[in-house]
Amino acid sequence: MKRFEDYLETINRRLTQLLPACTYDAPAVCDAMRYSLDGGGKRIRPVLLLECCRLCGGDLDAALDFACALEMIHTYSLVHDDLPCMDDDDMRRGKPACHIAFGEATAVLAGDALLTEAFGAAANSEAAKKTPARALEAIALLARYAGAEGMIGGQTIDLESEGKTIDLTRLQTMDRLKTGALMRAACEIGAVLAGANDEKRTALVRYAEALGQAFQIVDDILDVTGDTATLGKPAGSDAQQQKSTYVSLLGLSAAKQAAQDCTAAAVKSLAVFGADAAFLRGLADDLMKRTS
Amino acid sequence: MKRFEDYLETINRRLTQLLPACTYDAPAVCDAMRYSLDGGGKRIRPVLLLECCRLCGGDLDAALDFACALEMIHTYSLVHDDLPCMDDDDMRRGKPACHIAFGEATAVLAGDALLTEAFGAAANSEAAKKTPARALEAIALLARYAGAEGMIGGQTIDLESEGKTIDLTRLQTMDRLKTGALMRAACEIGAVLAGANDEKRTALVRYAEALGQAFQIVDDILDVTGDTATLGKPAGSDAQQQKSTYVSLLGLSAAKQAAQDCTAAAVKSLAVFGADAAFLRGLADDLMKRTS
Repeated sequence: MKRFEDYLETINRRLTQLLPACTYDAPAVCDAMRYSLDGGGKRIRPVLLLECCRLCGGDLDAALDFACALEMIHTYSLVHDDLPCMDDDDMRRGKPACHIAFGEATAVLAGDALLTEAFGAAANSEAAKKTPARALEAIALLARYAGAEGMIGGQTIDLESEGKTIDLTRLQTMDRLKTGALMRAACEIGAVLAGANDEKRTALVRYAEALGQAFQIVDDILDVTGDTATLGKPAGSDAQQQKSTYVSLLGLSAAKQAAQDCTAAAVKSLAVFGADAAFLRGLADDLMKRTS
Repeated sequence: MKRFEDYLETINRRLTQLLPACTYDAPAVCDAMRYSLDGGGKRIRPVLLLECCRLCGGDLDAALDFACALEMIHTYSLVHDDLPCMDDDDMRRGKPACHIAFGEATAVLAGDALLTEAFGAAANSEAAKKTPARALEAIALLARYAGAEGMIGGQTIDLESEGKTIDLTRLQTMDRLKTGALMRAACEIGAVLAGANDEKRTALVRYAEALGQAFQIVDDILDVTGDTATLGKPAGSDAQQQKSTYVSLLGLSAAKQAAQDCTAAAVKSLAVFGADAAFLRGLADDLMKRTS
């Protein structure tokens, strides 16, 4: 999609500018931040943020640094998630994980720094200058969805569930927090920065929730059906770590049906936007059909 | 000091309220956050923030959640600093370090969550509602001083210096970032939230820088002269980890003189406030004379 490529280029260029210069001559942590951010991620969350902002009539230049902040938060979560004391994954996005490339201590600090700079980027954004009240609401949402009752809460459930069988309700709670929270942050912050009305904001939140669930189900499917080279991370790691997934609980066929149902629900929630939501509809379909 | 006790009570009460409720029934990370924050810290940074705000005629109720945010950031840095892959300290504030009490993975997540909630507290503060532009400037300062060019930069230099002898200039850079940055954040944010003029803001920044240096020198001295029970963390750990310190580079007697000189410089920078700065002067003296 042309628009996706345009967003991607804008986001990647800005991310590079936003990284700290680290003038104190101890570059390891800054190198590690750059390495992790450069890793060729799909940039789904920042793209979602910008597109939701556009759909609600917002100013994309003003929202850009919030989009980058969200990608920094997503990236920090991957860096910490891969640590030996967490999921202990050696590969990420097709190259050695941050702690393999830079050592464990630097990976902890690089993750911490990405999280910190994310909030710095948000507070220094054009949105903060032009619409300070909206920017503060967006920063509060960023913290809420990334925090202990959002993404980190999901990671906590994930840790506590290792080696145990959990039921579908618990799995859904975990995924709603672990994966869904930042998807929701993307769409809701895009709406908030644009000053969207409640109807549009609610529609985008519903889209994000369904999309996040579909995304996680597809992740679980790919861990079984994908290969390590295409995924850029080890296939089969869920089974190896005895994690309950949509595939282990529902079977492969029902999991595929569930992914389709969630994608359909995501698409349906966009009715209020009419034809203008074609990009978000296409994105939901593409994410369902992805192979990595 | 009566005022110190009053600040302490206000800060501790509010910190408890600000911690997330964690309603998703996976309390480990929230317990670990609470455990680390409850650990009986000196709360110097939030006290500094409130007092600097008061000195500049600001609204303490509006600034309170920024004070708490700063203490959350300080606490997260201790939790991550104590991890096995970092300083590998088992004791903190007189009790088992977070990763000893809750495991390494939960300690990583609890640190991440404290850092995240800190920015949430700042964005949801009374200051954000009443003076949004000042609040955004304060959030940007919080990120800058806590980030890769602030506290985390200092920790990076610390890591890279282990087992090596570094010179005094490098040690001062490290301490200016590692310890000084959050002291400076405290004083400067207090001034910003109060809408202080440049003269007062600059005076408080100078105070913070000198105080931060004195604080670190005294820390180095106590690691040599203190005992584990009083310190609440292992004495002698700098020597054990072969770290360069003010004591190892200057000798004990010259280090003590340097701490006095820095304290005197801190006190001198407060001239613009006259008698109203008695509390900050007393605080500088108390920190120099502390035994833990």
